[in-house]
Formats: sequence, structure tokens, C-alpha cells
Amino acid sequence: MDRILRRREALRAELAAKDLAALLVVDPTNVAYLTGFTGDSSSLLVGRDRDLILSDGRFTTQLEQECPGLEAYIRPSVQTMNQAVAHVVAGLGLSSLGFEAAHLSVADWESLKGELKTTSLAATEGLVEKLRSIKDADEVALIREAVAIAQDAFLKLKGELKAGETEKDAADRLESHMRALGATGTSFPTIVAVGKRAALPHARPTAGTRIGDDDFVLIDWGASGRSSYKSDLTRVVVTGNVTPKFEEVYRVVLTAQERAVAAIRPGAKAQDVDAEARSFIEQAGFGRFFDHGLGHGIGMDVHEGPRLRRESPTILEPGMVVTVEPGIYLPDWGGVRIEDDVLVTPDGREVLSSLPKGLDSVKP
Amino acid sequence: MDRILRRREALRAELAAKDLAALLVVDPTNVAYLTGFTGDSSSLLVGRDRDLILSDGRFTTQLEQECPGLEAYIRPSVQTMNQAVAHVVAGLGLSSLGFEAAHLSVADWESLKGELKTTSLAATEGLVEKLRSIKDADEVALIREAVAIAQDAFLKLKGELKAGETEKDAADRLESHMRALGATGTSFPTIVAVGKRAALPHARPTAGTRIGDDDFVLIDWGASGRSSYKSDLTRVVVTGNVTPKFEEVYRVVLTAQERAVAAIRPGAKAQDVDAEARSFIEQAGFGRFFDHGLGHGIGMDVHEGPRLRRESPTILEPGMVVTVEPGIYLPDWGGVRIEDDVLVTPDGREVLSSLPKGLDSVKP
Repeated sequence: MDRILRRREALRAELAAKDLAALLVVDPTNVAYLTGFTGDSSSLLVGRDRDLILSDGRFTTQLEQECPGLEAYIRPSVQTMNQAVAHVVAGLGLSSLGFEAAHLSVADWESLKGELKTTSLAATEGLVEKLRSIKDADEVALIREAVAIAQDAFLKLKGELKAGETEKDAADRLESHMRALGATGTSFPTIVAVGKRAALPHARPTAGTRIGDDDFVLIDWGASGRSSYKSDLTRVVVTGNVTPKFEEVYRVVLTAQERAVAAIRPGAKAQDVDAEARSFIEQAGFGRFFDHGLGHGIGMDVHEGPRLRRESPTILEPGMVVTVEPGIYLPDWGGVRIEDDVLVTPDGREVLSSLPKGLDSVKP
Repeated sequence: MDRILRRREALRAELAAKDLAALLVVDPTNVAYLTGFTGDSSSLLVGRDRDLILSDGRFTTQLEQECPGLEAYIRPSVQTMNQAVAHVVAGLGLSSLGFEAAHLSVADWESLKGELKTTSLAATEGLVEKLRSIKDADEVALIREAVAIAQDAFLKLKGELKAGETEKDAADRLESHMRALGATGTSFPTIVAVGKRAALPHARPTAGTRIGDDDFVLIDWGASGRSSYKSDLTRVVVTGNVTPKFEEVYRVVLTAQERAVAAIRPGAKAQDVDAEARSFIEQAGFGRFFDHGLGHGIGMDVHEGPRLRRESPTILEPGMVVTVEPGIYLPDWGGVRIEDDVLVTPDGREVLSSLPKGLDSVKP
């Protein structure tokens, strides 16, 4: 069976277990995962024995090319998507319809309720996301490719990086390198943050700050590769002096990151992996300067399940791919974050990224 | 008064008119518009006499820098956003709270309802979007800048374009040019579609199709400039023969586009502007090959209000900025679309984009 169809069959089994006649999938990434369709503005109806994508005339030809064999309902432009769903659901005689509560807006839910005559709506959460959190071999290969593109582009940039160029120029060039290496784009807006600006975990590169304005630069980047699979990495590059304070902070982050990576294995709780890094950083006296989760799943979205953070009860399973990215951010000094992408394997873990991260490697 | 604060005052007047004690703004672009904050994962509470942004520790410093004077509630990581909202709302003693029904998911709405003890929720739609649809002078200047970047990059690309390079290479270079000219990125994934592939209104550039594989290439692109204001343009470039069929289709689209642009003025109905182009294309016999709306507002989002399409009752007002982009798509032949960005002025309209589009200009 084709891998895309296999996903819909897995979802169908979930529907049967939950006694749902059908699920309306509205999240564009979930639709893409279940169909291979790369457009937008389209919803998928997965029923007990029939699937149907609802779209509009802009995508007729694209659907034929990307989703051969998938039944499509092309709504006329005078019909809204919710009217189209009601029309199709009535035709199928569905008495109940599951919907994605985390993705359907209250406004669309009200409108859909108004259009449906005899079909009741049932909220569901995370059904497709749960399937997506376990990658198959093809997906792991696509993530490996996105990691390789990101790494090659970084090494090229690092070799060229010179004092005086702006954060924005460096970020633009990193993106250009990733595209030239086959990426369709970046996973997210690249972060290039010099010195103090690295104290902002989500800093945007500026044209006003230059490489060399401070002793180091933090780069957080990723490639969106074929079929949109993503990578997400962070490294710090020293361009000036390695101060004792930098060494101290860097060593703490690196050890915390390595401990967390080593804690990844099937059966481990996500919150325990987070705690592995967090408790080490706390013991080193930097606890209040690590104020975000340890990591997140990557795949077709750069942020997806599972989340590695406090209170996360998720149990890790083989096939999950997560980032591990502890950081310490000191206001008016800067920040250090180290991030790798890690696959949960049947025996433990495989770190998919391989850029050097030892203190020696970041020295100029 | 500062322009950002003026926006919140305008929203406050709307709240008073609707007898709402406060509005919870969750859409990231709406939050950015009302605060100047460029991060994410943050919500804004606009009350009768007090505004407050709810965020997390990753954004503490960034909020201080980007939103001086705006009160911030930094939620601890053990508190969810909905718990934080309930906490703040209880502190303010609000009896009712408006929310953005088009942006709040059913899941978040259910969760928020559960957290709120004595506050009732009231659905609102489009309050901030309505303000955003009318641009002030600063915003128009930012859009002009985004248009200029896109145009300069296109002219550079057009001068270099050569047979044999892939659609993807051309799209990557266009993006690289826009960034070098000051863009923070593209407005949306660039479309470079050669010949038959231009029959897909939302074609993605491929590495398998090359410039010169067919007689012409359609390019739909835009720059995201400072403060994320966007441009959105489409031109067709002929790289081979100008066939009689191409001439016929191109002339119809061009005339339809020019007629629609000329129909733009304050007081005109959006659906009438759409009809101006649509009826011309229908009379020319291509009606069923123009299966999308005529255009959309641009601003901080590349698709925002007002929509120019069938059934749209919106009345155009000075300060609105819209795309005008009719197209004809013939399966197995290709497609032609021509798109400019147009400002509604007190007297009529100003076309912000100025790239040549006459049939002579597209010939090789």
C-alpha cells in the first residue's frame, strides 16, 4: 500500500476506535500529510470507507497531478467551504462528523453548525498530529536530507563569515546557500544574533548589528527540504575573545544538552528529558535564565509533537524526531543555545546532526 | 499620539460602541499591528482604560525594547496562556471579554471558558482587521518600499534570465535579490511557472522545468519589507515565440485588469470592481478559465481585507491597498495573470507598481 494511503488507513482505524463516522481535516499540514497535496485552502474528509478532498478551481489540475486516485469535490466560487462541506456530508448521509478542535476557529465552527442540517459535530484533538509524531523511514530520510542541507550551508557560511558584515547579510546568505543546496526555503526566519542580542531567544537579524561587534554570534537556522520536511539547528560561533564567562556558560549549556540527548530513549518521559537538562542548569545557578522548553518535534512543521518540556507526560517512541536545545540567556550579556535534531530509535537515539559543538570547535 | 497607540484608541472606541469591556487579541499579526511587537506566542488584552500583553520569558527583553510603556504580564512556564488570561482577567474584574472568533480555535475557546470563573466570552469578528484595511501614510510608505524592492529585484532577474535555468533557480535568485535590496523575505513562496505549468494558479517552482522549455514564464512574487509590510505582483515574460493564442489571451487579461483598476475609487463596491474584469473575460469567451477572486488587500499580511471578489459587499475607502490580478488558465496550454498593487485615494486610485505590462514590453 502506498505510504500516503497507509496514513489514511491508520487514521481510519482511530476513527473506528472512537466511533466516529468521519473526520473533517482542515489544518493544511495535516491535509498535506494525508494526501500529498501541497496547495492550501482545501479540507479533507476521511470517512469509514471513502475519502474526499474539498478544494476550489485554482487547484483542480494540481490535485489531479499530486493526488491521483483521490476523489475531489471542487466547490463553485459562489459556495463557501463550510457550505461545500455541508453539501458533501449530506450527500454521504453522515450523522456525525469529527472536527479538529485545535484548528477549526470558533467562527468556522458556528458557520459549519449553521450549514449542517442533520449532522452533529464532535470535537477531536491531535488525531493526525499523533500519527505525524512517529516518522516512517521515508520521512526520516527527508529530515536527514534537510539536516544535511542546513549543515552544509552553515559550514559554507562559517568559512566566509567576516567581521563587519551585518546580521542580516549573514542570515540572507545562509538562506541563499540552503536554497542552492536544494532547500525550498528556511524552516523559520533565521536567527543571527551578535552578543547581547543573543539574550533574545527569538532575535531577528538586524542591519544595524555587525559580526564582530561583540565576541560571539548565535545562529539558529533550518532548511525546509523536499516535501517540506524541516531541520532546526543552533550553534554559537566565537568571533572575538573567549571570556571566562563565555566558557562557563557554554560548558553548562553543552553538558546540559549532552545529558538530555543521552536521556532520550523509547519509554522515557518527555518531561524527564527536559528535567535532565534543566536540573543541571539549575544546579549551575542559571535556572532562571533558561525560560523555555527543551525541545519539540520536527517534521512537516518545524514545531510539532512531541514537546520536550516541564509537565509533558508524552512517552517517547521510536520514530519520533525532536530538537534538544537548552539555552542560557543573560540580559545585557548575551545568550548561548546549542541545538541538535535527534531521532528516537528502538535502542535509544541517533543524533541526526553532526556539526562540532565542543568548546574548542567554536573558538576562532 | 504615537501611531501604534492611536490604533489601540480606535479599537477602544469600537469596543465602547459594542459595549464590550475588553477584547482578547490572539492573532499574531493583529497583536503586532496594535503593539509593534514582532514576536509570537503572545496575546493582547485591550480594555476600556488599560492594555496589557501576555507573553512568556523568551520575550521579556524584546517586549521592553519593542513596546516601551506597554504593560506586560510574563506568564510562568507552568501556566498555560489560557490560565494566564484567566488570571489577568480576574485581577481586572472583567465581567465580559470579547474574543476573535475567526482566530481562536474551538479547543482554546473551550479551555478558556473552563478557566474563566465569572467572566463571559463574547464572539467578535474583524474588529482589528477593519482598522488594518485602512492604511495610514506611514503604512502606505512601507508598502511603497516593499513594491519598489520587488520591482527592482524583478528587473534584475529579468535582465539575467536565460534559457536552460530551472524555475527553482530563478525563484531562488529573485528571493536573494529582494533580500539584498532590504527585504526581510518574500511575501509568499515565489511562483515561477513555465508554459503549461502556469495553468496552475499556485504552481510551485520546480527543478525539473527550465526557462525556455515553453514560450513564456509566469512570475508571481512579492517582498516582505520593513515592519513586514508586503507587496504582491505578477508579470509574464515571453522567452520564445509570441503565438497568436498568447497574444489573444494576454490582451484579454490586460484589458480586464486595466478596466478593473480604473473602476477602483472610494464608494465603489468590491464586487463591482471584480465584475468589471470578470464580465470582460466572460464576454471574450474565457469566463470559466478565471476561477479565482480578482484581488485582495495587502499590508502586514499578504492576504487581508478587503477582498475583491464576487458577492463581496465591501465598499472601497481611501487608504485601502489591494491587488488586481485577473488571470486566464487553459489546461495543457498555460496561464496568463497580470497583477498590480493599487491604493484607493480620496479622488480615485494610485497604482503603486509601475513595471511595464503592455504586450510589447513582454516580448523578448
